[in-house]
Amino acid sequence: MASKTPVGFIGLGNMGNPMAKNLVKHGYPVIVYDVFPEACKEFQDLGAQVTESPADVAERADRIITMLPSSPHAKEVYTGRNGILKKVKKGSLLIDSSTIDPAVSKELAKAAENTGAVFMDAPVSGGVGAARAGNLTFMVGGVEQEFNAAKELLTCMGSNVVYCGEVGTGQAAKICNNMLLAISMIGTAEAMNLGIRLGLDPKLLAKILNMSSGRCWSSDTYNPVPGVMEGVPSANNYQGGFGTTLMAKDLGLAQISATNTKTPVPLGSQAHQIYRMMCAKGYAMKDFSAVFQFLREEESL
Amino acid sequence: MASKTPVGFIGLGNMGNPMAKNLVKHGYPVIVYDVFPEACKEFQDLGAQVTESPADVAERADRIITMLPSSPHAKEVYTGRNGILKKVKKGSLLIDSSTIDPAVSKELAKAAENTGAVFMDAPVSGGVGAARAGNLTFMVGGVEQEFNAAKELLTCMGSNVVYCGEVGTGQAAKICNNMLLAISMIGTAEAMNLGIRLGLDPKLLAKILNMSSGRCWSSDTYNPVPGVMEGVPSANNYQGGFGTTLMAKDLGLAQISATNTKTPVPLGSQAHQIYRMMCAKGYAMKDFSAVFQFLREEESL
Amino acid sequence: MASKTPVGFIGLGNMGNPMAKNLVKHGYPVIVYDVFPEACKEFQDLGAQVTESPADVAERADRIITMLPSSPHAKEVYTGRNGILKKVKKGSLLIDSSTIDPAVSKELAKAAENTGAVFMDAPVSGGVGAARAGNLTFMVGGVEQEFNAAKELLTCMGSNVVYCGEVGTGQAAKICNNMLLAISMIGTAEAMNLGIRLGLDPKLLAKILNMSSGRCWSSDTYNPVPGVMEGVPSANNYQGGFGTTLMAKDLGLAQISATNTKTPVPLGSQAHQIYRMMCAKGYAMKDFSAVFQFLREEESL
Amino acid sequence: MASKTPVGFIGLGNMGNPMAKNLVKHGYPVIVYDVFPEACKEFQDLGAQVTESPADVAERADRIITMLPSSPHAKEVYTGRNGILKKVKKGSLLIDSSTIDPAVSKELAKAAENTGAVFMDAPVSGGVGAARAGNLTFMVGGVEQEFNAAKELLTCMGSNVVYCGEVGTGQAAKICNNMLLAISMIGTAEAMNLGIRLGLDPKLLAKILNMSSGRCWSSDTYNPVPGVMEGVPSANNYQGGFGTTLMAKDLGLAQISATNTKTPVPLGSQAHQIYRMMCAKGYAMKDFSAVFQFLREEESL
Repeated sequence: MASKTPVGFIGLGNMGNPMAKNLVKHGYPVIVYDVFPEACKEFQDLGAQVTESPADVAERADRIITMLPSSPHAKEVYTGRNGILKKVKKGSLLIDSSTIDPAVSKELAKAAENTGAVFMDAPVSGGVGAARAGNLTFMVGGVEQEFNAAKELLTCMGSNVVYCGEVGTGQAAKICNNMLLAISMIGTAEAMNLGIRLGLDPKLLAKILNMSSGRCWSSDTYNPVPGVMEGVPSANNYQGGFGTTLMAKDLGLAQISATNTKTPVPLGSQAHQIYRMMCAKGYAMKDFSAVFQFLREEESL
Repeated sequence: MASKTPVGFIGLGNMGNPMAKNLVKHGYPVIVYDVFPEACKEFQDLGAQVTESPADVAERADRIITMLPSSPHAKEVYTGRNGILKKVKKGSLLIDSSTIDPAVSKELAKAAENTGAVFMDAPVSGGVGAARAGNLTFMVGGVEQEFNAAKELLTCMGSNVVYCGEVGTGQAAKICNNMLLAISMIGTAEAMNLGIRLGLDPKLLAKILNMSSGRCWSSDTYNPVPGVMEGVPSANNYQGGFGTTLMAKDLGLAQISATNTKTPVPLGSQAHQIYRMMCAKGYAMKDFSAVFQFLREEESL
Repeated sequence: MASKTPVGFIGLGNMGNPMAKNLVKHGYPVIVYDVFPEACKEFQDLGAQVTESPADVAERADRIITMLPSSPHAKEVYTGRNGILKKVKKGSLLIDSSTIDPAVSKELAKAAENTGAVFMDAPVSGGVGAARAGNLTFMVGGVEQEFNAAKELLTCMGSNVVYCGEVGTGQAAKICNNMLLAISMIGTAEAMNLGIRLGLDPKLLAKILNMSSGRCWSSDTYNPVPGVMEGVPSANNYQGGFGTTLMAKDLGLAQISATNTKTPVPLGSQAHQIYRMMCAKGYAMKDFSAVFQFLREEESL
Repeated sequence: MASKTPVGFIGLGNMGNPMAKNLVKHGYPVIVYDVFPEACKEFQDLGAQVTESPADVAERADRIITMLPSSPHAKEVYTGRNGILKKVKKGSLLIDSSTIDPAVSKELAKAAENTGAVFMDAPVSGGVGAARAGNLTFMVGGVEQEFNAAKELLTCMGSNVVYCGEVGTGQAAKICNNMLLAISMIGTAEAMNLGIRLGLDPKLLAKILNMSSGRCWSSDTYNPVPGVMEGVPSANNYQGGFGTTLMAKDLGLAQISATNTKTPVPLGSQAHQIYRMMCAKGYAMKDFSAVFQFLREEESL
């Protein structure tokens, strides 16, 4: 354990914080940076080195993980004035777990390559709970020979590490999954709502769908109708879970990727608009299954 | 066996033919009618009585099953000039397995009630293959006390007979399932297509979706991308399966039900339009999973 | 004037009331019926005969105008137990100004023809203000030889009477116009909203659209953005004008007609869903241009 | 005339070629560059100076107009290795007439500002015909004090030069107009198609729409139904006009702007998808009004 070389970690938000802690738990010396200095304090107490910039991290660690909220943040952290690439060492392994536009991942990989470093995209699925429990899923894109090196670190934070292909395919896999998830969630909400209006009992309808060809994760594992399942956000006034703004963000990435590759995604694009309208109408902080509530008549009417 | 009372069967098309044969196999004397006399011939050879009109069937059998292509056909067969209700006996059990507007099912049930007969809607899922094999699923709506009587007959033709609630809920269950099916099929096609364009291997992407929250029947059992699964229409140039026109028809029923109940179904409605466009562009006779092909760039371009 | 034969009028609601009054003003003896007796009182004071049922009206007048809220009401008034057709005289002229499914208009025309009467559909555009002022537009479908007879009456209530073709085409013209209207209104709201977010002044943007290919009635005559025009509902908190529920109803008719004729209407169908969602979210009684407000971020967020 | 200082022109494609020629006609010495050297030849014969790179143009002219196909091309021409900004003189006026993402226009303006130059976006509407005739419309964004200087040049190429506001608003105005145009064109195609299916004569329906609230540029000036108007692409098998791929491109820009500003554009987004599907189904090179044809049943069916 003592011989483990340090790992850099940049971005200590809701997700990054528990992920970095899991690295610490596994005995890695951690070198951290966050744009908000207070986010680093906790790690100082855990014995981590706190730095002044991404470039500083790159100077002290040749394996770095980043967890950032959006494409522009990722660009800044990697290629900005005090970015990683300003001081990265040759042969360094840079793993970006942010969910961003795969085209940006490719750009960053190219810029990293120019400095002799290796960049991989490794977005996660699973949310804050899974980050704490260390059982995230990582979808990894990048040079295949480096996959094992990346996996060594990622298995400290996740239970499932999947190699997806060349750089950007990790993002692609996540974006495609979440687009299909949004579509089937809205579809489930519409089908349940219509069935109820037509006189069906919601539990019975869910049971019928789940043994038929309408079955999907949103109907059998995360049903959006209050009263149908326990332990899901719909049983708790749509609190917790995966927020509507986050879903809207991921659908925006899917939209941009589809536009760039000229791929028709008629339902994915409509799903994006529905989550946008929900954000505009007060559902921003609710779980994305609240689309069931959004589509129902308001009680006051 | 000898004591079984006769059962009427009206509508001997692709589905009705094998269904009626299964009744014969189970030893029921069958009294048939079809608007095309040649459809009855085969049953004459099997010992069935052939009649001249739905009314004639009603005169000779007090349990009747109907399997018709659309709402107007069902109205005609029940309430038309020579319709069942013209000569139906009191206490008769009328089971309609057509897929039609649930509002029409309710109308027919009321009309039947006025003559002292009982009407149940019992649309099927499963297609011609399941009809032949006798393992259709029936979704049944109507008075609960009559469900067992209906089930006795329906189990000759299906392996799964589900009671859904009052009249019309059988249709409602089927319509809701198929609307969700269409939405998740199109969503799967979009997600697979986008992923492929972004550099993912289709089999790998399907595997990732199927272990994640994007999982649905269309991704794990009936994947629309050629080469991902065997034994599905996408492996056979989208032949066989569930035709695009039939899906467009069911989505039309969902649309009408949603309009009548003022239920917003933004994706269901868009799915309907996509299957309409496919019908207009030469996909009418292909399996509904051909939406994957419809959304791809044509090779000749 | 004294020689004018009586005209029946059934349906004295928001629209029917001022329309019937304009007939009275033009010197026609009017025979009225409404399902709410109190709606007739005012007409009794004006010298009109009040009757007990549509059939009674048909007994006393051989020209009848109906103005009803929906397809089922129209069916009941014409073909119900005490409907017009129960006692209609041969050669009577029946003009339905309701906005209903053109397929229902055709059914009613056929039923009328069987009794020797002539049925025409003549839905209006223009709203309550135009009904009072007597300058509605009538879109008329039916046998061309009868058009002049219909026009004689309709010009008492409207300034514009357009012959559209066979029975049902009056409805068709109205439905098509209102579908396009809804689409361009939502489109205008989206374009104005996007432009404002991108830094454009709303008045300037409206001016640019109106001199370019984006120009439409919704942008140049009824702009949905507060502050751009005066004298329109957007200048008055979206009060008055054409209510969102009425637009949703007309789009529902367009949807049913499109489904029945298997016509793809992807944007018309989406417009329908958007007005449905607006009804569910508290916009039911606002003018349909309030879609601009619906699509904006709520101020409280 | 002799005293006119030279003007740089970069991008001599379908649009840039006739635009640059109009500058020559107005007596401006022109300094040209195009990535395809052969595109410059014609200008050499007209007495223009041909250069080796955008940077070379910037060295020799302090007023430069660029006309490029997309955001990445514009970035390359301005900020690339041999880009304008590498050698631009202080106080130069840089006018970009490309249609690109307004966010990119803002980036380029900032980069130009850092070198002491002024950047304005001035996308055009009007197509190749208007470019030749010198009656394009320019929508101009940028510092207001520089507008007159820009206008001096732009009036050589266009009849209408509109100041829209700060940098990026020229793009915004164009994008918003074209999004609304696409929506109303598809809406017109749907309404006309539905009306025809319901029995209306297309010319009559167009007339009714044009005197009613459905009126729009697509219905009254550029009707998509063959036989309704003369001199429009629908009268000529959808040849000429504004190509479907170009519309799809502009809708992609609208989509990206809407995603970036979190603006819901449900119909704009659906319009984008429809033009994408048309590109995939063989309509790429047809005028965008061919959506009428795309939505109709194929004749061979």
